[in-house]
Amino acid sequence: MIQPQSVGIVAPQTAHFATPLPLRSGGSLPSYDLVYETYGTLNADASNAVLVCHALSGSHHVAGRYADDPDSLGWWDNLVGPGKPLDTRKFFVIGVNNLGSCFGSSGPSSINPATGKPWGAAFPFVTVEDWVDTQARLADRLGIKRFAAVVGGSLGGMQALSWTLQYPDRVAHAAVIASAPKLTAQNIAFNEVARQAILTDPDFHGGNFYDHGVVPVRGLKLARMIGHITYLSDDAMGEKFGRSLRHGKAVYSYDVEFEIESYLRYQGDKFAGFFDANTYLLTTKALDYYDPAFAHAGNLPAALASAEADFLVVSFTTDWRFSPSRSREIVYALLHNRRNVSYAEIDCAAGHDSFLLDEPQYHAVLSAWFDRIKV
Amino acid sequence: MIQPQSVGIVAPQTAHFATPLPLRSGGSLPSYDLVYETYGTLNADASNAVLVCHALSGSHHVAGRYADDPDSLGWWDNLVGPGKPLDTRKFFVIGVNNLGSCFGSSGPSSINPATGKPWGAAFPFVTVEDWVDTQARLADRLGIKRFAAVVGGSLGGMQALSWTLQYPDRVAHAAVIASAPKLTAQNIAFNEVARQAILTDPDFHGGNFYDHGVVPVRGLKLARMIGHITYLSDDAMGEKFGRSLRHGKAVYSYDVEFEIESYLRYQGDKFAGFFDANTYLLTTKALDYYDPAFAHAGNLPAALASAEADFLVVSFTTDWRFSPSRSREIVYALLHNRRNVSYAEIDCAAGHDSFLLDEPQYHAVLSAWFDRIKV
Repeated sequence: MIQPQSVGIVAPQTAHFATPLPLRSGGSLPSYDLVYETYGTLNADASNAVLVCHALSGSHHVAGRYADDPDSLGWWDNLVGPGKPLDTRKFFVIGVNNLGSCFGSSGPSSINPATGKPWGAAFPFVTVEDWVDTQARLADRLGIKRFAAVVGGSLGGMQALSWTLQYPDRVAHAAVIASAPKLTAQNIAFNEVARQAILTDPDFHGGNFYDHGVVPVRGLKLARMIGHITYLSDDAMGEKFGRSLRHGKAVYSYDVEFEIESYLRYQGDKFAGFFDANTYLLTTKALDYYDPAFAHAGNLPAALASAEADFLVVSFTTDWRFSPSRSREIVYALLHNRRNVSYAEIDCAAGHDSFLLDEPQYHAVLSAWFDRIKV
Repeated sequence: MIQPQSVGIVAPQTAHFATPLPLRSGGSLPSYDLVYETYGTLNADASNAVLVCHALSGSHHVAGRYADDPDSLGWWDNLVGPGKPLDTRKFFVIGVNNLGSCFGSSGPSSINPATGKPWGAAFPFVTVEDWVDTQARLADRLGIKRFAAVVGGSLGGMQALSWTLQYPDRVAHAAVIASAPKLTAQNIAFNEVARQAILTDPDFHGGNFYDHGVVPVRGLKLARMIGHITYLSDDAMGEKFGRSLRHGKAVYSYDVEFEIESYLRYQGDKFAGFFDANTYLLTTKALDYYDPAFAHAGNLPAALASAEADFLVVSFTTDWRFSPSRSREIVYALLHNRRNVSYAEIDCAAGHDSFLLDEPQYHAVLSAWFDRIKV
C-alpha cells in the first residue's frame, strides 16, 4: 500500500548523451547513458528543481516504489514526498545514478559500444567533478538552468559542494550533509583495505570477471563489511547487537557466534549479490581524490571563494566516518567567504548512517531550510 | 652494538609440559611446549618475578636481541632492561609465547604428535584463561609461587587482569595497559572482518593450508591492514601520512597513490610473511570471548571481587580501539571492591599503539609504579 505522503509508484528514465565527456582522469567518454527519476512537477520557469546526489552504494531511486516490487522503497523516501521535508508539492526533485555506477547509468558492467562486451577494467576513472558535469548536462536536457537546491549526504554532499564551485550560477542553495571537504588518511585507509579485498579476490580477474561468468563475491563482501563498521557508531552497534551470543554462550567455532557477526555477514552477502565490484573500486577512488582545496595549496577558504549558493551544512554527533569537525571545516571556509550558511550538528546515536534515518530534529532542520527556499 | 640499558643478547628457552591441559573450549591438550625468555636474576625467595603478557601479534621476545640477528629487538625493549621502567637489576622478567601462537609455543603450525602433521584446524580454541593457566604452570616450573607483578598491554592486559581473578594469591601487583574488560560490538566486528578475510581466502583450505604448501597471504594481509587502522589514531595517521600523494598528483590507478596505502600494504605484506593465519583466527577469538563479567550477569564489580592485587591501569587519550572509558570501567569496578588502584590516562597522539612507544609520561608512570614494588 502506498503511504499518503509517498510519491507513489515511480519509474526510471534513461537519457543518452552522444557528446563526448571530458574526464579529469584524462581522455573522454565518447557517449554514455544516465538513468534518473523525477518526483513532482517542474514549474513554468523551471525554478523549483532540486537535485539529490547519492552516496557510495546509492542510486537514482530516491523516493517511491516500483510497480513490480513492493520492497523497492527509495533510499531517501522518508525525506522526499508530498508534505515531507523535501516537499514534492513544491519542488521538482531529480535523482540521478552516477556515471560508473551499476544501476543503469553507464559503468564498468555496461556494454562498451566499441567492443560489444562489458567495459570492465577499461571503464575510465571518474571523479566527483565529472559526475557534476554529467548532472549539469542532464539539467540542460531537462531545461533546468539553475537548481533551487542541490542536496546530498556523504559522497552526495561532496557533489553538492562541488556544484557550488563548478557551476556557481546554477545552484541557489546547497545542502551538504554528513560530508567532508576531503578524506582523512584514515578514511583512505578504510577504502584501501576494501579495494585490496576486491583486487586480490581471485574471481576479480583484473576487473574483467564478467567474461569469466563469476563475481568477486568474497572481496565485495569484505569491502561491505568494513564499510558497515564505519557507517555505524560504536554505541549504535553496541546498543543494536552488544555482545549478544546467538547460542547464549561461547560454542568455540568460526560460524556466527555473536549477533554482530551475523549482521555483518548478512549485509556483506546481500551487497555482493547486487553491487558491481568495479563500481565499488571506482567510487572509493572518487572519494579519495575529492579535495577541492588541492588546487589551492590546501587552503579550503580559497577553494570555496567562488561559491555563491546559500548553504546548509549538517553533521551528526556520533558520525566518526565524517565527524562534525569535518563539517565545521566547510562552515568556517564558507563563513570566511561571507557566505550565507546554516549549520546544524544533530545529536543522533546512529553514526554516519544518521543522514538516512528518521531523526526528528534532523528532518525539522531540513523542513525549515527547504521551506525558506523561494521558487 | 648493544645499548648500555639493554638486557643484551638473549636466547629463548622451551619448556615441555606432558600433563594434559584442560581447556575452556572443552577437552584438553595432551601435551604442549611453551617458549619463553627471562631477563635479570630470580632472587633467593623468588619474590622478584614479573610476567609480561603479549598482545595479538607479540611473542615471548620482550627485550634484548638475538645473537644472529641485529634487528631482532624485543617488542618492549624500551621498557625492560637495566635502569629502564621495568628494571632488570631488580626484577626477574619473564616473557612467554602464548599457547596457540606461531613463535615456538605449541600452536596450529606445530606438529600434532598424534598425527605427525601440523595441527592446522584441529588445534583447539584457547582462551585468555587457558593462557593464564599455562603461565601458572610455567611459574611452578620456575619455582615462582607468587609474581611481584603481572603486566600487559591490550590483550596482554586482559591476561594480567585474568591472573588476578584466577590466581589472586599468586599476583602481588597487576598492570593493565591500553586494555578493556571485554570487547565491544565494534571491536568484535573488526575481528570478524579480519577472520572472514582469512577464512574465505582460497589458500586457507579450511585451516590445513600447510598440507597444500601455500599460505593464505591475501587474507592475512587484509586482516593486518584492518588491524593497523585500529592501532593508530585518526590524527596520528593524518600526521604521519596525511593525504600525501606519492606522485604529487592523482594518477588514476589502483597502484599505490597515497602514502597511507603504501604503509598499509607494506605492513600487510610483512605480516603475511611471518604470522600464522590460524593463530590470527584463534587469537581474535580469544579476544572476543574474554569477558570476566559474563559469569556474573555482566556485573564487572562482582567479577573483580576476588582480585587481591594492587593495580595500575593505564589508558591513552587517542586510543579508539580500547578507549580510556574502557579502562575506567576496570578502575571503577576495582574501586568498588576497595582495591588499591592507580589510574593514569596518558595524553598521547599515537592511538592504541601508544603502549609500545617511548612516551615519557607513560614511562615515568611505569617507573614510579615498579619502583614502589617491594621484592
